Amino acid sequence: MRTSRRSDVDPFIVMDVMEAARAAEAAGRHIIHMEVGQPGTGAPQAAIRALSEAMAAGPLGYTVALGLPALRARIARLYGEWYNVDLNPDRVIVTSGASGGFILAFNALFDSGDRVGIGAPGYPSYRQILRGLGFEAVDLPTADANRLQPVPADFAGMDLAGLLVASPANPTGTMLDHASMSALIGACADAGTSFISDEIYHGIEYEAKAVSALEISDDVYVINSFSKYFSMTGWRVGWMVVPEDHVRVVERIAQNMFICAPHASQVAALAAMDATDELHANMDVYRANRALMLDGLPKAGFARIAPPDGAFYVYADVSDITTDSRAFAAEILEQAGVAVTPGLDFDPVRGHTTLRFSYARKTEDIAEGLRRLTEFMGERR
Amino acid sequence: MRTSRRSDVDPFIVMDVMEAARAAEAAGRHIIHMEVGQPGTGAPQAAIRALSEAMAAGPLGYTVALGLPALRARIARLYGEWYNVDLNPDRVIVTSGASGGFILAFNALFDSGDRVGIGAPGYPSYRQILRGLGFEAVDLPTADANRLQPVPADFAGMDLAGLLVASPANPTGTMLDHASMSALIGACADAGTSFISDEIYHGIEYEAKAVSALEISDDVYVINSFSKYFSMTGWRVGWMVVPEDHVRVVERIAQNMFICAPHASQVAALAAMDATDELHANMDVYRANRALMLDGLPKAGFARIAPPDGAFYVYADVSDITTDSRAFAAEILEQAGVAVTPGLDFDPVRGHTTLRFSYARKTEDIAEGLRRLTEFMGERR
Repeated sequence: MRTSRRSDVDPFIVMDVMEAARAAEAAGRHIIHMEVGQPGTGAPQAAIRALSEAMAAGPLGYTVALGLPALRARIARLYGEWYNVDLNPDRVIVTSGASGGFILAFNALFDSGDRVGIGAPGYPSYRQILRGLGFEAVDLPTADANRLQPVPADFAGMDLAGLLVASPANPTGTMLDHASMSALIGACADAGTSFISDEIYHGIEYEAKAVSALEISDDVYVINSFSKYFSMTGWRVGWMVVPEDHVRVVERIAQNMFICAPHASQVAALAAMDATDELHANMDVYRANRALMLDGLPKAGFARIAPPDGAFYVYADVSDITTDSRAFAAEILEQAGVAVTPGLDFDPVRGHTTLRFSYARKTEDIAEGLRRLTEFMGERR
Repeated sequence: MRTSRRSDVDPFIVMDVMEAARAAEAAGRHIIHMEVGQPGTGAPQAAIRALSEAMAAGPLGYTVALGLPALRARIARLYGEWYNVDLNPDRVIVTSGASGGFILAFNALFDSGDRVGIGAPGYPSYRQILRGLGFEAVDLPTADANRLQPVPADFAGMDLAGLLVASPANPTGTMLDHASMSALIGACADAGTSFISDEIYHGIEYEAKAVSALEISDDVYVINSFSKYFSMTGWRVGWMVVPEDHVRVVERIAQNMFICAPHASQVAALAAMDATDELHANMDVYRANRALMLDGLPKAGFARIAPPDGAFYVYADVSDITTDSRAFAAEILEQAGVAVTPGLDFDPVRGHTTLRFSYARKTEDIAEGLRRLTEFMGERR
C-alpha cells in the first residue's frame, strides 16, 4: 500500500531531541530537560480523588459528544471569573485536548485547499494538522517589533479562509494585548477570514492577564485545554468555544470523529478547576523559574531574549552564535547535558538561528540547567 | 463566520432516539435501552485498580505518540493468543479509540477527493468521518445472500483508493470467514486499493472465532479498540496495526494530531487485557442475551433476522411491517417503552425498512424488552 501525499508531514524536531536525551539518560548521563512543553507536575490531587470516586461509583461510558454538562457549565463560569465575560454554556464544547479542538475547528470552518494563516514562529502542529487535513498552511513571518505576533498588515490582501493566533504564544511567550487582538479580529471580520484564538497558555501569565478573543467578539473560535495551567497534559481533555450557530455543526463532527472526550479525564478536569491552592503553587514555581531564566540566560551568553508575558518558554535569538540551531542544540545536549529545542520546529525559515528554552520543570532543575549552560558557553568562547 | 461544506455531515439518528428516550425517562417513564452500542458494564476492576495505583505513583504526562511500549507489546501478544499470528509490537499503534484510528488511517492512506468503499449497511461514522476529512465515501450496497458483507464483485472496476470492512459488523453482527476476507484482500491488492479492517467487535463472537485480516496479509490496516470486548467505551483508547513501512508515517501524523492517546486510559487498558474472568463473565451475559433475542424477536413478530456471528446487535428486516423505520422506532419507544435504532443510520437507501436491536445491556433488561415488544406487536396486529 502507498501512503498519501497528505501524510507527508514533518516530524517534530523536539521529538528527536527528546529521543537523544532519553538515549543519553539510558547511557547513564544526567540530563536537564529544557525541551519539553509540559508541566513536571501532575493533575491536582482533587482531580485524582474525584476520578477515584467516580470509578468506584459506576461505569464511565460515553458522555454526550459535547461533554459532561457540569463541566461545560463550569468552563463557562471560568470566563466570568477570568475575563468578566458572560458565556452561554451551550457554546462550550469539551474536546480531546486542544489537538481535538483544532481538528474540529479546522473541519468545521475550512474546505480542502483553503488557505489558513499562522504566525511564524509558532506551534509546529498548526502547520502539520492543517496540511494533514488537506488545507494549506500559510506561514506569516512576524516581526521583532511586533514581539513576533502577527498584525493585520502581515496578511492584508491574502484572502485567507482563516487566521490562527496564539496568546501567550509558543515558543515566544508573547501576548496580544486588547488593542492588538481587536485589530486582528477586526481585520479578519472585514476580510471574511475566520478567526481562531489558541488560548492554551491562559492562566500562566506574569505581568498582565491574557486577553481572550471572547472579550472582543462572539464571532470567533477559542481553543483551550486542561494540559497547561491545570497541569493535565496526558489526560487529553480541553475545550472550545464557538459561535452559537456553529454548535450543532461542531457537535455532528464530534459525534462522528471523536464520539466524546475521555470520560475519566472530564471527571478529573471538573475537579481540577477548583484546585485553586495547588494551581497557585504551580504558578509560584513558574514565576520563580522565569525570574531565574531572565537573570541567568543573559549571564550565560543568551542575551537576545524578550521577557515572556506568559507560558513557560524563552525564545532566544542565537544568530550571534550559530546559523545551525539543530547542530547547536545537539552540541548543548552533548556537552552541557541540557536538552533544548532548535527553532526550526517553530519557524522553518528563520529558526536556524533560534532556540526555545522551556522552564516548565522544577526550580532546582532550572537552576542546575542555567549553571550548566553558563559553564558550557564559558568554555565555548 | 460561515461553516465549511465538509462540515455538513449527517447527525446520528440514534442520538435523536437516545435524546427521545432520555426525555421520556425525565418525564418518569421506564425505558429499555436496545438502541445503545455500548456495554452496560464498566472497565474491569483490575483496570481501575491499576489506574488508581498509577495516579498515586506520579504524574500521567504525555506518553510517546505510538503509545506505552508495554501496552503495544501486550497487544502484539494478543495476536498470538487469539489468532496465532506472530506480530511485531513496532507495528502496533495505540490510538484515541477506534475513532482516532480511523482519522489516522484515512489521512495516512488517502488524499482529498479519494474514493473509499464502505459496505451498506455499516457504521454511520465511516461515511461521516470520510466526508468530514475531505474524502468521498462510496456506499457499496451489500446482498442478503452475502450476509450483508461486501464481496469483490461489489466494487470491481470502481477504482477505489480504499475499502473498509467490519467483521463482526455493526449493525448486522455478521462476519467474514477466512475465504471471504481473503477474496476481498486479494481483490484490493490487485486493484491497488488499500484495505482497512475494522475489528472492533473481535472477542465478542459466538459460533466461531472472528478472522483477523492479519491472518491473511501484512499489507493491511487493522483497527481495534478497548471499547467493546474490554468494556471501556468512555476511555477512548484503541489500537491500529499497520504495515512496517507505514509506522513512521502514522507516527508523525499522530504526534501532530493527537500527541498521544489518554495516558490514564492506556494504563487501564493494559490491566484490562488480563482481566480474563471478568471479560468471560461479560461474554456469558452477551451469550445469554443473544439466545433470548433469537428466540424472542421472531415470537414478537420480527421474523426476518439472521443470527449474529458476533457483536451485540440484531438487524431486522421490517419491510413486512413498515416503510418508515424512523416513525416505527418512534412508535415503539412511545407505545412499548423500548428504544431501538432505525436502519437509516446504517443504510441511507434501504434502511427505511430495517431496525437494529442492541442486546449489550443486562439480561433482565433484554427479557423485559422482549416482553414489551411482544405485547406491543400483539396489540398492533
